Amino acid sequence: MTKVRVYVSYKASILDPQAQAIKAATHKMGYSIVESLNVGKYFDFELDSEANMAEEKVAEIANELLANPNMETYKVEVLN
Amino acid sequence: MTKVRVYVSYKASILDPQAQAIKAATHKMGYSIVESLNVGKYFDFELDSEANMAEEKVAEIANELLANPNMETYKVEVLN
Repeated sequence: MTKVRVYVSYKASILDPQAQAIKAATHKMGYSIVESLNVGKYFDFELDSEANMAEEKVAEIANELLANPNMETYKVEVLN
Repeated sequence: MTKVRVYVSYKASILDPQAQAIKAATHKMGYSIVESLNVGKYFDFELDSEANMAEEKVAEIANELLANPNMETYKVEVLN
């Protein structure tokens, strides 16, 4: 069994209103030390295969299903 | 400057229909090796403070703003 994590986040060129709203909220709450904030999703897979194959297949899944190639980028990380 | 990441995910007892739908989609696409899938959000903060204080403040922000205590749990990780 292999655990693989995919991080999906907006490309740097894309404005993220949610992140901006949360950052503004933290400042209103008094946390002025917050300089920047990025928000993303992560997907934790458990796969019945060894690490190399699992990583390869999850990258395919990320590319075909999880990330919108126009606005998002993804990163695959084998956890164990 | 300190980078701190917060992971927010559903508690184990909470059914996540999005994760179930994505898992079903991966099986339809032929990736039967996918045994389980958990989906969550992550928040990458950059803070103008040293690591200990940054970690403490981000935990407060996660507790007060980012995670719904009824359904979600969070984990704080100092990245650098």
